[in-house]
Amino acid sequence: MSAIDQLREAVCAANRALVMHALVTLTWGNVSGISRDRKLVAIKPSGVAYEQLQPRDITVVGLDGIPVSGSLRPSTDTATHLVLYRAFPGIGGITHTHSTYACMFAQARRAIPCLGTTHADQFNGEVPVTRQLTAAEVAAGYEAATGDVIAERLKGMDLAGVPGVLVAGHGPFSWGADPMKSVENAAALEAIAHMAYGTLALNQTSPLEAHILRKHHDRKHGPGAYYGQGS
Amino acid sequence: MSAIDQLREAVCAANRALVMHALVTLTWGNVSGISRDRKLVAIKPSGVAYEQLQPRDITVVGLDGIPVSGSLRPSTDTATHLVLYRAFPGIGGITHTHSTYACMFAQARRAIPCLGTTHADQFNGEVPVTRQLTAAEVAAGYEAATGDVIAERLKGMDLAGVPGVLVAGHGPFSWGADPMKSVENAAALEAIAHMAYGTLALNQTSPLEAHILRKHHDRKHGPGAYYGQGS
Amino acid sequence: MSAIDQLREAVCAANRALVMHALVTLTWGNVSGISRDRKLVAIKPSGVAYEQLQPRDITVVGLDGIPVSGSLRPSTDTATHLVLYRAFPGIGGITHTHSTYACMFAQARRAIPCLGTTHADQFNGEVPVTRQLTAAEVAAGYEAATGDVIAERLKGMDLAGVPGVLVAGHGPFSWGADPMKSVENAAALEAIAHMAYGTLALNQTSPLEAHILRKHHDRKHGPGAYYGQGS
Amino acid sequence: MSAIDQLREAVCAANRALVMHALVTLTWGNVSGISRDRKLVAIKPSGVAYEQLQPRDITVVGLDGIPVSGSLRPSTDTATHLVLYRAFPGIGGITHTHSTYACMFAQARRAIPCLGTTHADQFNGEVPVTRQLTAAEVAAGYEAATGDVIAERLKGMDLAGVPGVLVAGHGPFSWGADPMKSVENAAALEAIAHMAYGTLALNQTSPLEAHILRKHHDRKHGPGAYYGQGS
Repeated sequence: MSAIDQLREAVCAANRALVMHALVTLTWGNVSGISRDRKLVAIKPSGVAYEQLQPRDITVVGLDGIPVSGSLRPSTDTATHLVLYRAFPGIGGITHTHSTYACMFAQARRAIPCLGTTHADQFNGEVPVTRQLTAAEVAAGYEAATGDVIAERLKGMDLAGVPGVLVAGHGPFSWGADPMKSVENAAALEAIAHMAYGTLALNQTSPLEAHILRKHHDRKHGPGAYYGQGS
Repeated sequence: MSAIDQLREAVCAANRALVMHALVTLTWGNVSGISRDRKLVAIKPSGVAYEQLQPRDITVVGLDGIPVSGSLRPSTDTATHLVLYRAFPGIGGITHTHSTYACMFAQARRAIPCLGTTHADQFNGEVPVTRQLTAAEVAAGYEAATGDVIAERLKGMDLAGVPGVLVAGHGPFSWGADPMKSVENAAALEAIAHMAYGTLALNQTSPLEAHILRKHHDRKHGPGAYYGQGS
Repeated sequence: MSAIDQLREAVCAANRALVMHALVTLTWGNVSGISRDRKLVAIKPSGVAYEQLQPRDITVVGLDGIPVSGSLRPSTDTATHLVLYRAFPGIGGITHTHSTYACMFAQARRAIPCLGTTHADQFNGEVPVTRQLTAAEVAAGYEAATGDVIAERLKGMDLAGVPGVLVAGHGPFSWGADPMKSVENAAALEAIAHMAYGTLALNQTSPLEAHILRKHHDRKHGPGAYYGQGS
Repeated sequence: MSAIDQLREAVCAANRALVMHALVTLTWGNVSGISRDRKLVAIKPSGVAYEQLQPRDITVVGLDGIPVSGSLRPSTDTATHLVLYRAFPGIGGITHTHSTYACMFAQARRAIPCLGTTHADQFNGEVPVTRQLTAAEVAAGYEAATGDVIAERLKGMDLAGVPGVLVAGHGPFSWGADPMKSVENAAALEAIAHMAYGTLALNQTSPLEAHILRKHHDRKHGPGAYYGQGS
């Protein structure tokens, strides 16, 4: 199988995993993956049901957005994905969903504070939220501008500790080393958002102590990480 | 297969999809479809379990409500559906459910404000709520009067941007080009209601900026829509 | 098959339906049925998993609680069921669960006000809540006393309009013409509780207008009821 | 089959049951079991998906943490489990999850008050919450220190009435006579937390009366317990 066919399979499987993780209603979510050496991005076609999605349906575009193969129209959010791949050379997959609790925070334009170790296991601090786009930015190219405000918000941050973001008034984007990892980070973000929602309702708003946050993030993602089976 | 048999199949499949989208408890929901050229409406029989529903069980009535075929009694809400089909010539399917979060807003007699792009993707503004029926209206014919207050509330609005409504103290009705589309709009309305519920709990009550609302609705439903695979 | 074997089958099926309606965690719920002419009650055995439950496992006791057949120990709540069967000759099945939202109201010792038509379709007014048992009542026979406070609370009410109740600090009991109907009323009560919980959170506390409540209850349960396929 | 192989099967089955009880996102939970006479603990390997888990994957370590068999790395939380097995000779299985509602209380650093009989059936009073670990404790050995603060919090309590605890800012640990019992207690704790969350939202904060709490706990766990089928 060619490298691009393998990427298509991986992107197809990751899109179908959105359903398994209960992250999507109807067709409201998309996952992409990139072949860095070939500078090609594979992404879900727009408006196609996950249940019917096959690897051959996955569309492939260049980093400039020009279609390379696939007869279907790529996700309307493709331009956002492309901006992120260009801005962040270390990521191999991107997921965008409208998952319920992450959207509540995005719609409330509130960053999700780190309130516990579940959060600290994934994020090295709060889940950031972007600013809202201006009318001029929307007019000039909405989807690319969405990528731009994400990149603006994350500027100077180490993405290894920030596997996702909330776009104000919209919803979550997440990323990872490959398409499936970006979906797992989307599932983690939704679970974190749900817990934070309830923790705030119980009137706890103080962030987790810094020494616990650091320990949990480092034991999973730091230089001496000992979670999992190693690489 | 005859056109009416095809309609019955579509209406049966759409009613069964209510279960798949987790929109119903027991038998609390019904979907209908219309054959505009034949002026016939096919609708779920009253009180029958979705799991057992077969196309031959779907009842068919004229736009005046007179039964045409089917041995079962049509949904008690049939008169509401008929008023809506007469009032809105552009719709081909109608769904009524008692889905949880949409009912919370209906019971609270609150329109759902547009608080994010998930909402803007579906509705061109708030999800409207009707007024409550008077005792006289209930006495004169409750189900038809329910259709009347919906039509009254939507008068002058472009239904392409309002695929559903909340009946005060009751629950949601939604519609679409065909029966399954009306179910998808019911699923979308429930998801929107859930997100809005949580966003309000997080103390965010300002509506989405108009330029974002317009952009999201138009890229999916406007003249130059580019979501999905086209028609 | 004998009448008692048929009752056992019905009670087994109704207990298994608790899982299908997502009303139980672990083994926290039980359904019984009564043969009125034989004065025998069939009920779930205590602590047995629903997935493994077979009709032969269902225990049968007299209205006085004396075991008639079955080698397993009946539900610890059997005495509560027996009090209700003796107090209310019209009911044929009883369900007790610890379903989540009904328990929230029971634990809050709050009746569930009728806030919408979903509720009015099932209950002819609020879902009542009992008083708490005294220490003396608990000491004298806890489970029978639980039945007594339910009967005390419902005294003089028409049970056709009150298919369930909340025991203060405990959870819901519901009933119906047969075991499966009592489970359906348990599912309805849980859905009503969930909607009321959210409606109250949205700051709506005024009950549904009386003319709507009456209409909805009567079209389903009144003398001229026209919901369903008739009897 | 050897005793250790049987333990591995039991631990594997209990870990897979976490998914069935909807207690885990991704790989965020682990169950262990102990062979008291052999002083060996079997536990889930770190970062392995439950769906793929086989008995042969379960790692086995001594009570001192030294690996005995299994080629995979044990859960990062192994040291916490070992402290608890050493501190509490009566327990045969331990479960740790990040289940949603239990985490909300853990993150809010609030014990769960006993607000109803569902809770009293499982816990002989509130679900306790530990203090937060100091920076020095984290530096000296985080996972063992987590076990130490649990043991500190439970000192002098009868564990038969306290089948679980919340670690402040983190999440729940539960235990039982064997691995599957500890999972059932984790499911019970999550259900209790969900009900308490909603009961508090309905503004009920008074604990259950002592005579009801005692009765419910004793009829299930006391000397004359009559719930279930006996031993």
